[in-house]
Amino acid sequence: MPLDKLTIIGAGLLGGSIGLAARARGLAKRVSALVRRPESVAECRALGIADEVTLDPAEAVAGADLIVLCTPISGMAGLAKRILPALKPGAVVTDVGSTKQQLVTALTPLCAEAGKHFVGSHPMAGSDQTGPSAARAELFDNTVCVVTPTADADADALATVNDFWAALGSRTVAMPADTHDRLVARCSHLPHLLASALAGRVLDAEHGEQQAQLCATGFRDMTRLAAGSPVMWRDIVGSNRDNILAAIDEFADELGQLRGLIAGDSPEAIEAWLQRAKVARDNWNNSADAD
Amino acid sequence: MPLDKLTIIGAGLLGGSIGLAARARGLAKRVSALVRRPESVAECRALGIADEVTLDPAEAVAGADLIVLCTPISGMAGLAKRILPALKPGAVVTDVGSTKQQLVTALTPLCAEAGKHFVGSHPMAGSDQTGPSAARAELFDNTVCVVTPTADADADALATVNDFWAALGSRTVAMPADTHDRLVARCSHLPHLLASALAGRVLDAEHGEQQAQLCATGFRDMTRLAAGSPVMWRDIVGSNRDNILAAIDEFADELGQLRGLIAGDSPEAIEAWLQRAKVARDNWNNSADAD
Repeated sequence: MPLDKLTIIGAGLLGGSIGLAARARGLAKRVSALVRRPESVAECRALGIADEVTLDPAEAVAGADLIVLCTPISGMAGLAKRILPALKPGAVVTDVGSTKQQLVTALTPLCAEAGKHFVGSHPMAGSDQTGPSAARAELFDNTVCVVTPTADADADALATVNDFWAALGSRTVAMPADTHDRLVARCSHLPHLLASALAGRVLDAEHGEQQAQLCATGFRDMTRLAAGSPVMWRDIVGSNRDNILAAIDEFADELGQLRGLIAGDSPEAIEAWLQRAKVARDNWNNSADAD
Repeated sequence: MPLDKLTIIGAGLLGGSIGLAARARGLAKRVSALVRRPESVAECRALGIADEVTLDPAEAVAGADLIVLCTPISGMAGLAKRILPALKPGAVVTDVGSTKQQLVTALTPLCAEAGKHFVGSHPMAGSDQTGPSAARAELFDNTVCVVTPTADADADALATVNDFWAALGSRTVAMPADTHDRLVARCSHLPHLLASALAGRVLDAEHGEQQAQLCATGFRDMTRLAAGSPVMWRDIVGSNRDNILAAIDEFADELGQLRGLIAGDSPEAIEAWLQRAKVARDNWNNSADAD
């Protein structure tokens, strides 16, 4: 660091925040953003997300050292194919996708054959809001960013990606893409689907106004994730299907065990089950606070 | 209002907050608190929770117009039996228990036979913290308090309880105890158990540090309730068993439906399922904000 040129492909919440943070911290001499809709050009310029905002892929990536794919995951492979011919030799490509195995499998050889390098990333940062207007330069402060290099990843490219996220304020954690996908299915995708199941079922038409009145702050916390984008989450589910099915089955098994304790009218066992969860949660929360 | 004397039985988060709010708002000429541990007397006095703090049940309730049971639900019936002989004729007893059917069934005839009135309440207010030091005079502001009169409830007693909660800042909603218990099983007890199941299973020993590192803000929101008191929640589960079992079964059914959509690799159906949940949650959130 600093890079000569950083290019953001897509300027929503994550891409926009990367642009703001990179400019605020001087990570690149120039920050360029590729957007899809003509009206986004003026909006992203006005928000200060990039030095250059363009609708032209070749112009966006020309001369860039580091390109970050910030579109929905379903569009990333197609976009990468389109920009690859315009990348300078040795350019490093990374992404912000919530699932990694499919993308790493598709993009690693594609980039390598073209003389460029792909290293997958998943910055674990987000917001209830979406779009460039929700972007914040501080979005990555004190967050974890998982980096998923393949076994034969180029050491310099990996260092570029690691340094980039660290410079944005993240703590990077390296692991294989399949490990990442298995773990986030449990701690990120499953919670999202539980929130949606809870909101959709509890607030169904049958139970009406009386039920809605009794939903309080606990319910609010437990369903916040259900407000996320159905299209984005449909794609995430599609790209991590087997791991999510396994996580649902594991959760259903846990819930079934609890059901057995309650049906068996065993207060001691119920208390012990609640206590085990509390200890796990408290320990995690304390260690997260200490970071 | 104002009452001559208000007595709080138990001065934890809820009882303490009632005391602080009642004194701040001048709801009673005297606020008295019954506590169990000698060291709580000085603590509650120092916190300003009541004008009088005592370990003596008869002293605490003597001359009180309104008595609010604020202990864990498992101890409420026993305590009510002990204080009943010391209550003045026509005194009104209410409570803050999270489940209502068992308590209403036990206490309504018990109080009536002694010439007093019981009307159940469930103020839907809480905090991550417990104990008198967590009490706040504003705890009930903009919350719902469910009041569960029986069909033959005394009209004056019901008005006293309604006015009391309204004066503390709550919006009261009346419904039968069994309706209350069925609805809170879905929107309060189920979410709590889901949070515990998620925390306990995702953070199990098998998955260790790598898993814990990937747990981010969504996971934090979705497991916050798991930090609650296992003893208190053991009691809640025990006092609302059948409704909670039904709510777990309903949720398992919903999760099973989702599993089928994912296993069937049906992106449109998954998106529609997520969209239905988002609409339900957004509508609820908007109407809650408008209150």
